[in-house]
Amino acid sequence: MSANVTVLGLGAMGTALAGAFLSAGHRTTVWNRTAGRADALVAKGAAEAAGPAEGLAASELVVVCLATYGTVREVLDPVADGLAGRTLVNLTSGTPEEARETAAWAAAHGAAYLDGGIMTTPPGIGDPGFMLLYSGERAVFDAHREVLAALGDPVHLGADAGLASLYDTALLGLMWAALTGWLHGAALAGADGGTTATAFTEVAGRWMKAVGVFMNTYAPQVDAGRYPGDDATLDVHAAAVEHLVHASEARGIASGLPEVFRELTRRGVEAGHGRDSWARLVEFVRGEVRA
Amino acid sequence: MSANVTVLGLGAMGTALAGAFLSAGHRTTVWNRTAGRADALVAKGAAEAAGPAEGLAASELVVVCLATYGTVREVLDPVADGLAGRTLVNLTSGTPEEARETAAWAAAHGAAYLDGGIMTTPPGIGDPGFMLLYSGERAVFDAHREVLAALGDPVHLGADAGLASLYDTALLGLMWAALTGWLHGAALAGADGGTTATAFTEVAGRWMKAVGVFMNTYAPQVDAGRYPGDDATLDVHAAAVEHLVHASEARGIASGLPEVFRELTRRGVEAGHGRDSWARLVEFVRGEVRA
Repeated sequence: MSANVTVLGLGAMGTALAGAFLSAGHRTTVWNRTAGRADALVAKGAAEAAGPAEGLAASELVVVCLATYGTVREVLDPVADGLAGRTLVNLTSGTPEEARETAAWAAAHGAAYLDGGIMTTPPGIGDPGFMLLYSGERAVFDAHREVLAALGDPVHLGADAGLASLYDTALLGLMWAALTGWLHGAALAGADGGTTATAFTEVAGRWMKAVGVFMNTYAPQVDAGRYPGDDATLDVHAAAVEHLVHASEARGIASGLPEVFRELTRRGVEAGHGRDSWARLVEFVRGEVRA
Repeated sequence: MSANVTVLGLGAMGTALAGAFLSAGHRTTVWNRTAGRADALVAKGAAEAAGPAEGLAASELVVVCLATYGTVREVLDPVADGLAGRTLVNLTSGTPEEARETAAWAAAHGAAYLDGGIMTTPPGIGDPGFMLLYSGERAVFDAHREVLAALGDPVHLGADAGLASLYDTALLGLMWAALTGWLHGAALAGADGGTTATAFTEVAGRWMKAVGVFMNTYAPQVDAGRYPGDDATLDVHAAAVEHLVHASEARGIASGLPEVFRELTRRGVEAGHGRDSWARLVEFVRGEVRA
């Protein structure tokens, strides 16, 4: 299925998005506020709009990828009459609050709206192994899912336009946690000599599959508010965390992480949850329990 | 192939180990210091040794899973004459230093030695989806790999007997990092209402595959000591970390993690590495660079 799609904003990410639409055979119109960014895309078959109004006129599906939500409004407010009947897919980075405001603004101008979060860098665009997160009305997502799939694996999160941004931030937090834990682990495993980061990472990658099983076990515990520890209790974790602290200190390795785990497990144990699972700690993370 | 194997120590983990050997059809001899722990295993076909000496006599392959390395020596020192020609696989939890000492002690008594780390809890024993890590001479591992596979996926790390313990600790650190990041993410994604931990975890699980790709990209950078940032630079991360800090603070969510990421990226950027990748931070984690 070949569709008409417009991409407004040709930074590195917008250029990658337009390129992926072109590669998938869609009739792609592009525009950028400063000139000269469209040339390579035009050479690949894109049409260049003279301005945002022409971009809106060219396609029912309009993907926006600009520097900030402020820029989005600067670009589109003057041509907002052209939004009626359009679907605006805003892949600009911002906050959940900005996404919700922009959804209301788009609705006031008669446009359907999806907000999105791109869970990769420009070179990953077009790879179905990476997700693009969308929030907004399900029917709007369903109507454009196939076209959006040209950019990567499209995932719909819910009707609240702020969800894509919220998930984006939450998933980046998870990524930094995992990457910092991985760096700490690679440094620790390598500290006694002979273990490369590559060797550690091969084992770490297999281990992360088991960790994913733990997450899937704990998620329903968080939702139910009951945290049976079975044999992996906070007491057991608290003791093992001390080994991590000591092994790291003995080797001069400091990421800041072991102290975070020690403090969290200590709070859980001191609050009387030593026989519960790790998932109990969500109550402390949420701030429901004060130290 | 049916083998003779002895398991010394029948705590929850030792019992699971012996049960897995029995399930795989191995002639299994068991012993525990306090009586009564062997009954269920004997009912399943295990032989019970009257003491550790009889346990050593029964099998060339002797798996030890006791409370501490001190207990291992208490149990085996009096019967050390029976170690000659045996292969001792020590799955007791301890430090790399204890593992190396015990390897030397075993060698002095004529025993081959593997030290191990069990990367699951007792109910996971026998599941090939979980790893058991081994360190010690490769030939010793290879000779027993097939029998040890009854316990889980056997992974050999290297000749240094301390590696299994070191990896164990490093991988647990990675696990706590990922689980804490996951709890923080679930709390954040759920904070605006309507998103369950289960829904977040489904997306998080897919995202972790992408994070695994990043680790595989960064590992050779760590080994080479060169950290090209391409488009995911520390400058970009540092800016995005601020979004995580603010989104978390606005919702009362505090795991201690965002502050760690902010401090690490700040140090990287201030040291002039803003255009490098996240992998550059290993130098700070290793303590090669002081704040």
